Amino acid sequence: MTTIQSADDLRAALRAAPGPDEIATRGAAERNGELTKPPGALGRLEDLAIWYAGWRGDPRPEITAPQVIVFAGNHGVTARGVSAFPSAVTAQMVANFDAGGAAINQLARLAGARMDVHALSLDRPTEDFTAAPAMDEAGVVEALRTGWEAVDPAADLLVVGEMGIGNTTAAAALAHALYGGAAEDWVGRGTGVDDAGLALKAQVVTEGVARHGGAGDGLETLRRLGGREIAAMAGAIARARAERVPVILDGFICCAAAACLAETAPGALDHCVAGHVSAEAGHAALLERLGKAPLLSLGMRLGEGSGAALAIQVLKGAVACHSGMATFAEAGVSGG
Amino acid sequence: MTTIQSADDLRAALRAAPGPDEIATRGAAERNGELTKPPGALGRLEDLAIWYAGWRGDPRPEITAPQVIVFAGNHGVTARGVSAFPSAVTAQMVANFDAGGAAINQLARLAGARMDVHALSLDRPTEDFTAAPAMDEAGVVEALRTGWEAVDPAADLLVVGEMGIGNTTAAAALAHALYGGAAEDWVGRGTGVDDAGLALKAQVVTEGVARHGGAGDGLETLRRLGGREIAAMAGAIARARAERVPVILDGFICCAAAACLAETAPGALDHCVAGHVSAEAGHAALLERLGKAPLLSLGMRLGEGSGAALAIQVLKGAVACHSGMATFAEAGVSGG
Repeated sequence: MTTIQSADDLRAALRAAPGPDEIATRGAAERNGELTKPPGALGRLEDLAIWYAGWRGDPRPEITAPQVIVFAGNHGVTARGVSAFPSAVTAQMVANFDAGGAAINQLARLAGARMDVHALSLDRPTEDFTAAPAMDEAGVVEALRTGWEAVDPAADLLVVGEMGIGNTTAAAALAHALYGGAAEDWVGRGTGVDDAGLALKAQVVTEGVARHGGAGDGLETLRRLGGREIAAMAGAIARARAERVPVILDGFICCAAAACLAETAPGALDHCVAGHVSAEAGHAALLERLGKAPLLSLGMRLGEGSGAALAIQVLKGAVACHSGMATFAEAGVSGG
Repeated sequence: MTTIQSADDLRAALRAAPGPDEIATRGAAERNGELTKPPGALGRLEDLAIWYAGWRGDPRPEITAPQVIVFAGNHGVTARGVSAFPSAVTAQMVANFDAGGAAINQLARLAGARMDVHALSLDRPTEDFTAAPAMDEAGVVEALRTGWEAVDPAADLLVVGEMGIGNTTAAAALAHALYGGAAEDWVGRGTGVDDAGLALKAQVVTEGVARHGGAGDGLETLRRLGGREIAAMAGAIARARAERVPVILDGFICCAAAACLAETAPGALDHCVAGHVSAEAGHAALLERLGKAPLLSLGMRLGEGSGAALAIQVLKGAVACHSGMATFAEAGVSGG
């Protein structure tokens, strides 16, 4: 589908999405066994290359057209004082993305990735979810569709990032609603709140989930507790699933968006690997729930897609080895 | 010094080597605090960029000329049956490096690195260290000098890798001699020996260390238990220290070479970061002894410099963010 008109369209697209190409997967696994290295000596790089080959339908793939998309949104819940930065910073950072001055600009350039920025109605924050659903149906569909349409179907790899003052609180609310536990398990310091700010975030998340939790699937939870940029990330990840474009997941907020898809349709994240585990408190637990082991663990907690964009290099390394190395037979090396 | 004539020359060079540029380090730390991100949000990337800036003497550095050098050597101790592959594979893999077919070729190219290969007297393996010192004085100096001279002083980053059937046994012997414990703490499966092979490696290492351990400093231990490619790696790392070229350490064998320097002169590895922790059993413990936290943990155990070459991308990402991002003032972003 080139676009979606409703949340049900997205649900249907996820359920109808094709899996990886089994022939390419088998071909890649065979090739991996013939390359000039001891079996298994490239560790996770070998699994990564085979996974990527399957999703691209090519046993000897290349990565030539990665896409990084950054979505930005504002959050009504900031009225509760949950962030160390004012909401105005969201638009200021969008200008910084457009000018090429943010971390994600440098990391996308280094990865040879196209970068797109979508600011979603920054002057119209979502509702404070402790008082009302964050978005109405039209609002969440608009955001999902923005994400869906932002993906270039010709991309061969996707990273989605975000900017949105207050969005670690929304992400924590989503994780808490989807996976239970206590609000304290999911809230973190975000851009840097103090202990009192952390306690306030837990209180706000508890209130939001008490009001909206347990109703409907992942997408409905996303509507009630998420944000525009989080919904757009979910829409983009879903589009990539439908188009068989592999995705590297970023940090806590990206994974909260992904979790809404996983809790909507099984297998919705089969095309995703976890780029990194961030320093945001709930991210490691969220990755565990998603069953994804991170490629990097560098204490990053910036968002913007920065951890995933850096992890593009790891995947590129895996694919370069897989597709560029000589086989034992080609090189005349004993063994294998 | 453009070359060394003796092990004592190397010792003197290590002791005389300059530290990082304190002004550049301070300048980089100041700049880091002004960039458009919450304080600390890039995690280890921030420390890496500041460390790199100090060694390069530039508060806003670039990485434009990385060098990867692969050294190859053969080991007399293979006569004891410690490897899953025959010694002939060392020369076959050197041909593969020269033809561009190995993993390290792909990873060096991806990192934009110059790659050099030095095969050290492959037809003249070291002595079996369970029977005699691996090298005589002239032999170890020749290997150290090969490494020393292989470094391009105009490089702005160095990775040294190796190929040498049997060299995980030599590296384990070095680690055991330098750091104690039991031989079993340091031996691993290398290219893939079975349980009996692993027990044999431990026995061989125990014998070698019983014969040669506890005599002299790191360089003398290297002469007795190491190998030509291990000595060359040590020579190259030492040259980089003298030239203030930052180094990314690779796996178990590279770190064993580095450990010989650390046990020769304090601060000899201040210009090094650990690129990854490998799946070879003793590597994590060796990194702990060196006080280095790995950048990557991907289950790699190939050698060749492959883990470190992949980690070049992480360092490049760190430096790209540090030197390319806008400051709060430049971008008109609130905060900082």
